[in-house]
Amino acid sequence: MNTNSQSLIQSLEWRYATKIFDPAKKISADIWSALENALVLTPTSFGLQPYQFLIVQDAAKRATLVPQSWGQKQVVDCSHLVVFAARTEITAADVEKLISHTVKVRGISVESLGFYRDMILGDIVNGPRSKVAHEWAARQCYIALGNLMTCAAILNVDACPLEGINPSEYDNILGLNGSGYKTVVALALGYRADSDKYAKLKKVRYSNAELMRTV
Amino acid sequence: MNTNSQSLIQSLEWRYATKIFDPAKKISADIWSALENALVLTPTSFGLQPYQFLIVQDAAKRATLVPQSWGQKQVVDCSHLVVFAARTEITAADVEKLISHTVKVRGISVESLGFYRDMILGDIVNGPRSKVAHEWAARQCYIALGNLMTCAAILNVDACPLEGINPSEYDNILGLNGSGYKTVVALALGYRADSDKYAKLKKVRYSNAELMRTV
Repeated sequence: MNTNSQSLIQSLEWRYATKIFDPAKKISADIWSALENALVLTPTSFGLQPYQFLIVQDAAKRATLVPQSWGQKQVVDCSHLVVFAARTEITAADVEKLISHTVKVRGISVESLGFYRDMILGDIVNGPRSKVAHEWAARQCYIALGNLMTCAAILNVDACPLEGINPSEYDNILGLNGSGYKTVVALALGYRADSDKYAKLKKVRYSNAELMRTV
Repeated sequence: MNTNSQSLIQSLEWRYATKIFDPAKKISADIWSALENALVLTPTSFGLQPYQFLIVQDAAKRATLVPQSWGQKQVVDCSHLVVFAARTEITAADVEKLISHTVKVRGISVESLGFYRDMILGDIVNGPRSKVAHEWAARQCYIALGNLMTCAAILNVDACPLEGINPSEYDNILGLNGSGYKTVVALALGYRADSDKYAKLKKVRYSNAELMRTV
C-alpha cells in the first residue's frame, strides 16, 4: 500500500464510537471549519441536499437532550454536537430552488436544465419515490453521516454516532416542528477522554470474505 | 487550515458523480485492497454490519444491469461496481453471530456481553425498530456508501453513486432472492474519461449558512 492508503486505513482503524469525551478538549476553529466544509460537500442524489445540520452548542439544550438519547453523556461532553435533520417531503419548490441555484453557480440558462428538472420531479416529487421522500432524505443524511465520520477520523477528531435517540423529542427541543425538517440521527464530535476504555478495545468486523462477494 | 485539512477538502472538491468512466483505466490491486478494507471498517449501529457488498466484475452481468440502471453506462465502463445489499430483517441469530465474533476477537466471555446482546435484541430484533429493520439496515448501507465515496476521493479514485436503479431486478440478476439481503444502492468506481464534461462543472452546494444552524 502507498502512504496515502496506509494513512487512510490507519485513521479508520483509529476511530471508534467514543463513549467518553474529554469535556475540556474543544475542536479548534480551523478544524471545525474544515469539518463544516466537508459536510457541505457531501454528495446527495440529484444534488438536492435535502437536509439541515443543527450544531447544538447551547448547554441547557444539550442537557435536555440527554434523557432523549438513552442517557448518553456524549451529548453534553462532546465539543460539537451535530443533529442531522431530513426534509419531511420533497416539493416542486425544492427542485426550483436547486435549479435556480445551479443556474447562478454555473452561469447557465434555466432552459438548459429542463431535462434535469423533469427527471427530479418525475422521481422524488411526483413519481413512486415521492411516497418515501422523507426516508429517501434520511438516507441522504446517512451519506453525510458516513462522510463526516470518515473526515473527522482523518483530522484526528473523535466521534460517536447517536442512533439511539428519540427523534420527535429532539424535534421538540430543537424547534423543528413545522420547519419541514425532522431529526434523523446525530453525531457527537470532540476528543476522547483518557479514561475511555473503549478506545483500547479491538475493532470487531467480519472478514472481507464474509462481507464481500465477487460476482 | 493545516495541510491535512486542505488536502481533505481538495479531495472532496475534486470528486464529482462521474458520468463517463475510461473503461481502459482499472483500479490497481493495491488501491482496491485499501478501498475494500475501508469499506469493511465502516461504522454501523451496534456494530451489526447488516449488509453485504457485491463486487460485480462479470461483464455479461454488468451489461444486463444497464437497463435496470436508467441506462447508465457507468455500470459497464467502471473499473469496480459495488452493490450494497441490506439485510431484509435482523434476527436473534444475527445478534448471536455478532456476539460470538466479538468474544473471539476480544478474547472475552459471552456473559460479559449480556447487556449488549439484550440492548440489541430489545431494539432492532424485538423492539419497535424491528418493524423497520430492513430500512434501518439500508441506512447502514448509506453510511458505507458515504464512507466509501470519501475514501475513494482521498485515493484519487472516481466514483458515481447509483440510486436510479431497479433494486428488485438487481436482486434477480445478482441472485439475491432468498439470501436474506436486498439491493439498496450501488457505486461505480474507476477513473473519469477525458471526455467527461461534467468533471469541469462547478460544484453546486448551498451555503454553510443555509445548510447549518447553530442552536
